[in-house]
Amino acid sequence: MNFHERTVFPRGFRCASRNVGLKPQARDLTLFASDIDAAAAAVFTRNQFPGAPIILGRETIKGGVLRGILANSKVSNVATGERGVENARRMAAAAAAELGTDPGKVLVSSTGVIGVQLPVEKIEAGVRGMKADLQGDPLVGAEGIMTTDTHPKALSVAIGSATITWVAKGSGMIEPNMATMLAYIFTDAALDAATLDRLLRRAVDVSFNMLSVDTDTSTSDTCSLMANGLAGRVDEQAFYETLVAGCVRMTEILARDGEGAEHLLRVTVRDAESGRDARVVAKSLVNSPLIKTMVHGADPNVGRILMAVGKCTDVTINTGATSAWVNGCQVVSNGTRLDFDDAMVRVALGVEVVDLEVSLGAGSASARAYGCDLTKGYIDENAAYYSS
Amino acid sequence: MNFHERTVFPRGFRCASRNVGLKPQARDLTLFASDIDAAAAAVFTRNQFPGAPIILGRETIKGGVLRGILANSKVSNVATGERGVENARRMAAAAAAELGTDPGKVLVSSTGVIGVQLPVEKIEAGVRGMKADLQGDPLVGAEGIMTTDTHPKALSVAIGSATITWVAKGSGMIEPNMATMLAYIFTDAALDAATLDRLLRRAVDVSFNMLSVDTDTSTSDTCSLMANGLAGRVDEQAFYETLVAGCVRMTEILARDGEGAEHLLRVTVRDAESGRDARVVAKSLVNSPLIKTMVHGADPNVGRILMAVGKCTDVTINTGATSAWVNGCQVVSNGTRLDFDDAMVRVALGVEVVDLEVSLGAGSASARAYGCDLTKGYIDENAAYYSS
Repeated sequence: MNFHERTVFPRGFRCASRNVGLKPQARDLTLFASDIDAAAAAVFTRNQFPGAPIILGRETIKGGVLRGILANSKVSNVATGERGVENARRMAAAAAAELGTDPGKVLVSSTGVIGVQLPVEKIEAGVRGMKADLQGDPLVGAEGIMTTDTHPKALSVAIGSATITWVAKGSGMIEPNMATMLAYIFTDAALDAATLDRLLRRAVDVSFNMLSVDTDTSTSDTCSLMANGLAGRVDEQAFYETLVAGCVRMTEILARDGEGAEHLLRVTVRDAESGRDARVVAKSLVNSPLIKTMVHGADPNVGRILMAVGKCTDVTINTGATSAWVNGCQVVSNGTRLDFDDAMVRVALGVEVVDLEVSLGAGSASARAYGCDLTKGYIDENAAYYSS
Repeated sequence: MNFHERTVFPRGFRCASRNVGLKPQARDLTLFASDIDAAAAAVFTRNQFPGAPIILGRETIKGGVLRGILANSKVSNVATGERGVENARRMAAAAAAELGTDPGKVLVSSTGVIGVQLPVEKIEAGVRGMKADLQGDPLVGAEGIMTTDTHPKALSVAIGSATITWVAKGSGMIEPNMATMLAYIFTDAALDAATLDRLLRRAVDVSFNMLSVDTDTSTSDTCSLMANGLAGRVDEQAFYETLVAGCVRMTEILARDGEGAEHLLRVTVRDAESGRDARVVAKSLVNSPLIKTMVHGADPNVGRILMAVGKCTDVTINTGATSAWVNGCQVVSNGTRLDFDDAMVRVALGVEVVDLEVSLGAGSASARAYGCDLTKGYIDENAAYYSS
């Protein structure tokens, strides 16, 4: 897949970002806009305490049409009661007024600290005039939604005469059913809302939903897909394959930039009895603190791989036929640790991208999960997130 | 419950420990012995890659009788294939020869690195003459089974004319179905093996199985209960209550000494629809890296409590009636974060024992889970555990 080095928007999409006083100096508010109405779909967190923007967003996306997205960082507007939902509505109304559209066509997101009321007046004042700032670099929009991300994240790729562009943020409170993750996908391909919804759900299942930084499921996760049709029809299967490839690539980018992360950890589980079994084991490995610290220290303590496989007590494992590889170097054969050269495994674990592969010897299903190592940086960032 | 300050053994139990060359200098081999045959029960890890001592131990405990326990630290004899099981049998035979009993009456445990063959000759040579060292302080036995524990762990308590004594080790790779945990319980009360098995399983369910340091389930977890009857019959209900109290107290000691831990974290979930729901939510909170780092930093980021409750998607939560307290200080009411004084919550989080209490407003069941904070010490210990 040929991703653009310099990210671009599909025809008819633009964005702007500003500092409106939620953070001391950094950009904290982003507006995405389509020149015309776009068919749209979205998936949200399954956390039972969804933020106010999620409650509103579920209602908004029923219309299947979006004209813009307004997202702020620093404060997530979660656990804020009725007043929080009212503030989310005020954000949608402010963006709609600026764009000259209906509030029901604006998706709102907020990311940051949980349980603090949104300074909505600052957002209302700040969004005024943003239409004039709208421009064509997706990274400008990515900047305004960063929390602990170390860099803004955007990707774009051509599909026939159309383009798909991803703008996203990570990077802690990330597991299943959307990370503390905002991912906005834009295309000028012509696809209806029902098709977008179907394709988005399938793509998210094998990408963002297989990402875990720390097992914690955010209350704010949102992934949307807008298609304004300006490039006309595309082949649906080709579009889907490109959508999945971009979602997987963005998942890897988010994993690598997980809070404090120094390695991207990719875990492939194969020869499982079912896809569900493969997913459970892959997630178990990618979430295990002892696997994550092993990767962090490049410590060839690979017996831990069997521990993290075996703790999945409700998965079918052919324990006598289970094997494992670290970046292609076999370390476990038939359920027993091989007598390998420690130095070789230390080298295999020492690179930036660590691929763990496990064969369960129980069938033919497979799955891949994405994560990162566990470092002191994670603890630094999270022991004082509220206070700093 | 009145636990002895100076731990003692029940009548007829003694122990010894030595350095036999598995570690450079520290004690690495412990022998526990009863003067006479004791009725016995044990529970083991549910990890699907159990260590060789677990495979042998499940066979041994079927006899319902133990005379002794031989346990080594440094090497866990896990993922070592047929040779590993043979080495476990050799350990049992060596201890049986020393004690003048049958190998089928000796429980064997090994704890330490996974996937390395046991230096069994060192153990065979080292156990010779240990009978002469047997003495009455349980802490001497606790010393020989330490891995990353910062102190040896033992407890004892009177129950009628009998005594119950716990000797255990932690302190990482600890979640459900036994921690990387070895816990040996001794009593001189007269109870048969079937009764011991029934009481032990119930006691473990509300204590050790509610402990989690890091969500990782060890391949070596073992908890045994030996009763030699030298103190005669006791009231079964009183015995059970004392057994539970001691198991819970030992669980707290293990949690507080979790790898790198600086706080004991106790999570009580009440007003749940079912006991299962209460356990799931309590475990979710005690395992959440964002809760653990919040406790570590005494950061009043208590919105995370709702995140960790809400990510339990298959639990009944009355979101509009959910409340939470930190060491008695209410921080969430009816699903919304209260507007409290940060400094007060900072103080509540800053003490050594942090109690989080959550009411789900959905029923009348409750559960308590035990864990610790997540610190840089955990990462230091686990990024180079194999190599150091």
